[in-house]
Amino acid sequence: MTAPQHRTPEPMWNAWGTASEADPLPEHLRALLTDALGVPRRDTPSVPRDQVRIRESALPDVARASIQDAVGAEHLHTDEHTRLLHTGGKSTPDLLRRRSGDADEAPDAVVRPGTHEEVELVLRACARHRVAVIAFGGGTSVVGGVSPDRSALPVVVALDLARLDRLLELDTESGTATLQAGLRGPEAERLLRERGFTLGHFPQSFEYASIGGFAATRSSGQASAGYGRFDDMVLDLRVATPRGTIRPGRAPASAAGPDLRQLFLGSEGAFGVVTEVTVRVRPAPAETRHEAWSFPDFATGAAALRQLARTGSLPTVARLSDETETGLNLASSEVGGSAPSGGCLAVTTYEGTAEHVGARHAEVAELLRAAGGTSLGAEPADSWDRGRFHAPYLRDALLDVNTLAETLETATTWSNLDRTYRAVHGALTEALGEQGTPPLVMCHVSHIYPTGASLYFTVACARAADPVAQWQHAKRAAGDAITSVGATITHHHAVGSDHRDWMVEEVGELGLDVLRAVKETVDPEGVLNPGKLLPPK
Amino acid sequence: MTAPQHRTPEPMWNAWGTASEADPLPEHLRALLTDALGVPRRDTPSVPRDQVRIRESALPDVARASIQDAVGAEHLHTDEHTRLLHTGGKSTPDLLRRRSGDADEAPDAVVRPGTHEEVELVLRACARHRVAVIAFGGGTSVVGGVSPDRSALPVVVALDLARLDRLLELDTESGTATLQAGLRGPEAERLLRERGFTLGHFPQSFEYASIGGFAATRSSGQASAGYGRFDDMVLDLRVATPRGTIRPGRAPASAAGPDLRQLFLGSEGAFGVVTEVTVRVRPAPAETRHEAWSFPDFATGAAALRQLARTGSLPTVARLSDETETGLNLASSEVGGSAPSGGCLAVTTYEGTAEHVGARHAEVAELLRAAGGTSLGAEPADSWDRGRFHAPYLRDALLDVNTLAETLETATTWSNLDRTYRAVHGALTEALGEQGTPPLVMCHVSHIYPTGASLYFTVACARAADPVAQWQHAKRAAGDAITSVGATITHHHAVGSDHRDWMVEEVGELGLDVLRAVKETVDPEGVLNPGKLLPPK
Repeated sequence: MTAPQHRTPEPMWNAWGTASEADPLPEHLRALLTDALGVPRRDTPSVPRDQVRIRESALPDVARASIQDAVGAEHLHTDEHTRLLHTGGKSTPDLLRRRSGDADEAPDAVVRPGTHEEVELVLRACARHRVAVIAFGGGTSVVGGVSPDRSALPVVVALDLARLDRLLELDTESGTATLQAGLRGPEAERLLRERGFTLGHFPQSFEYASIGGFAATRSSGQASAGYGRFDDMVLDLRVATPRGTIRPGRAPASAAGPDLRQLFLGSEGAFGVVTEVTVRVRPAPAETRHEAWSFPDFATGAAALRQLARTGSLPTVARLSDETETGLNLASSEVGGSAPSGGCLAVTTYEGTAEHVGARHAEVAELLRAAGGTSLGAEPADSWDRGRFHAPYLRDALLDVNTLAETLETATTWSNLDRTYRAVHGALTEALGEQGTPPLVMCHVSHIYPTGASLYFTVACARAADPVAQWQHAKRAAGDAITSVGATITHHHAVGSDHRDWMVEEVGELGLDVLRAVKETVDPEGVLNPGKLLPPK
Repeated sequence: MTAPQHRTPEPMWNAWGTASEADPLPEHLRALLTDALGVPRRDTPSVPRDQVRIRESALPDVARASIQDAVGAEHLHTDEHTRLLHTGGKSTPDLLRRRSGDADEAPDAVVRPGTHEEVELVLRACARHRVAVIAFGGGTSVVGGVSPDRSALPVVVALDLARLDRLLELDTESGTATLQAGLRGPEAERLLRERGFTLGHFPQSFEYASIGGFAATRSSGQASAGYGRFDDMVLDLRVATPRGTIRPGRAPASAAGPDLRQLFLGSEGAFGVVTEVTVRVRPAPAETRHEAWSFPDFATGAAALRQLARTGSLPTVARLSDETETGLNLASSEVGGSAPSGGCLAVTTYEGTAEHVGARHAEVAELLRAAGGTSLGAEPADSWDRGRFHAPYLRDALLDVNTLAETLETATTWSNLDRTYRAVHGALTEALGEQGTPPLVMCHVSHIYPTGASLYFTVACARAADPVAQWQHAKRAAGDAITSVGATITHHHAVGSDHRDWMVEEVGELGLDVLRAVKETVDPEGVLNPGKLLPPK
């Protein structure tokens, strides 16, 4: 994939990304909303910044003094603006709440440690003073993962890791890099590309999300077919806890007992704060090739991807849109007249040495053709590649014009894929329809495995009077549908608060007890991101 | 790889495998021992069966009654013969002890449950009566993983899972199979091949080791480059504990918190008893192709394998012997005169559809040639393939003729591989040399990853007066060398009792506390395989 540009993140408090990148909805899409979804033509802008209600900081003086001792007074912030920028993540409900002027849950302080040791000191101070700590990387959670929860502890600080922004070590022979947790995607990638390497991790949140966040949430990038999920790339972690530091990795693979890396990956700041991650990196690709394909329908396309995964002949990116998403892609993008009029669009990318790209492309193309695909050439895939981080900006534009837009995702085995697709599609359609806001529901497969795949749903519909409640109703129906068919409640968005109540379906009561025992061991005072990951006992 | 034949295991109490497969050492190898290693020509046979000391069963009547209630009286055995066959595993010290007539550690009973529910009942009964339980699959542990340890609890039963021997479900669309834990490698493979699939998991212990054992020890097979390690193949487990059942897997991949599968994989019967494993399976290969290569030296060969792993263009098997192992292979095998006189032998295998084998072979061969390799054609690789499960029988033959033979293994990053090789090689050579028994030390790489590889050492030398102490001294030196260079104490043999004291180097004191908290949660009475995996607090 194209090496993305480095940018300095200056996130907006009420939208994705930065102000300079905000983009009003093109008129032809606005017309489509009215025509296809019956969205009443009405502007629903955010309240201005000066009308936002932000709670006052309640950080006790003794806690403040301890934290200042750890990081220095200049790295402890209690001003409203800094706290507003750390008030929750970027889910649609998060944005809707802040756009309406509600930032009452704002943390009591923002702390910016500069070293692993300072993180550990802050955690000990917070444990001593019973102050909750939310590890905060890019703040891009879409599951409530960085939202203050005061049900157990009344005072909350956001531990912003932005100062941990260095590439600590690059082992070019082993192909490993040790990156600090606060590095955002583009900065990490720039540091590696300068030295001839790539991480190959490009989730949609890439421009703002952080290395620590990728680890803490089990992120998966658009190029997961070629580079793997983030949790697959991790050789070692450095995790600070109130009880000291854990370094769970020692080799590319080991049989020395349970794999503790996999206990801290996905622990979402509830078992400790990831400060460094040692990851597998690859030589920056000498060549990149795109090819789009058309399949007669979603099932045929999915069966074709299954063939690739099963054979072990994977491109770097493999992505398949359902009929609705394909139609909308074609209506909204630059693809233009050369695209097919129906069916399902698949995008493939190949990266590596020229020889590898050539060999792998030949093998994959033959398999896709045999499975019923028709090559559309490079252009529709190039177009997807250019716009691949754009969807969150589009969501902001939709929220401005009376439209609710949100996404959710799952994964399951191949034999359960169609059933899961229908169950979730049906649940979303019904739950929103019965609120009088029949939705557009579209879906793609973007992560494939030998035994199954992810399903990523995007929903848009007219906004109801209480859009947060409107979405919560639909989300509950979709989550229940997902667990009732035996799929996982999340393939790569993590648990946070939004998926917490389905964790008993995921791992059972005894599994929850095991996770609680781990938390109790590393965080006996319960200060690490309370209310996330684990439902209350 | 050739689909191995199904065999009914009737293991020997004092040797690997069955009596019919024992094989005396060929005269030219015996001569080589004397000439090259100075092994005095002396027979050192095992004592006969009737001279073996076996402790009396001390199973209390109340515990016996409870266990019989769970499984039926006919599945509880306290006879000497059955207990002898469950007295420890198959490490060289295990065999040396039993060959000398010492089976004093024998379990007090052998229990054979027929269902998951019966396993759970037995665990509850044992917890109630404070009886230790050792999950026993193939009994092939080489790290003391199934040896009774009475330091915490005086009464021990072996829970033999042989009756759990069914393929419960095959999902041909997803490519998953649910196998019961007691299935031995060849039976599991036969059940899958009959339906057109393969697990592709062929560790050296394949002929006797079990599905549950593969999971509980993080086994890795000879075809790991193509099929992955066993822990990579697992979608779900069913684990019985004294506190109930855990099912930690729900999808091919998930972000729903920590991956609990990876906490029970490698838990060696200390966190529960694995009764079922849902694994990824592959279509049985239509074609298999072998090719051997010669490299001028071990470092050049390792760099060539590194290229394959980094490119992601892996054969199904990739294996490289060092100069000594290459020399001995050539001296001992059927390769004959066509083989090169020096350098290092590498073996590659390709499996899959004809197209995949052709494409992958072409890509790999070009990379290996560019990296300094010379093709030797198929025959040396065919020869390796035919003899690939034979080494443990060879060890028995060596033990019969005054020779100590044992193996150990590790893994590390590519940049640390040479340092690790030299450290372990040096430690073994010195520790045995200073006991007056200078060894032959040979090594191969048999598992490769983008970021590193395994190293597998085989040692042979003249046997000292106390061969168990002789090896323990060398093993201690090798383990200390491994951890001092930052490699893992075991890549695929697991921890058991033999690697337990190095676990603090692997995961640190806080990591051990986490593992102890997990054990305390699922096994509050501490009856599950006590003394293994975790060092005493």
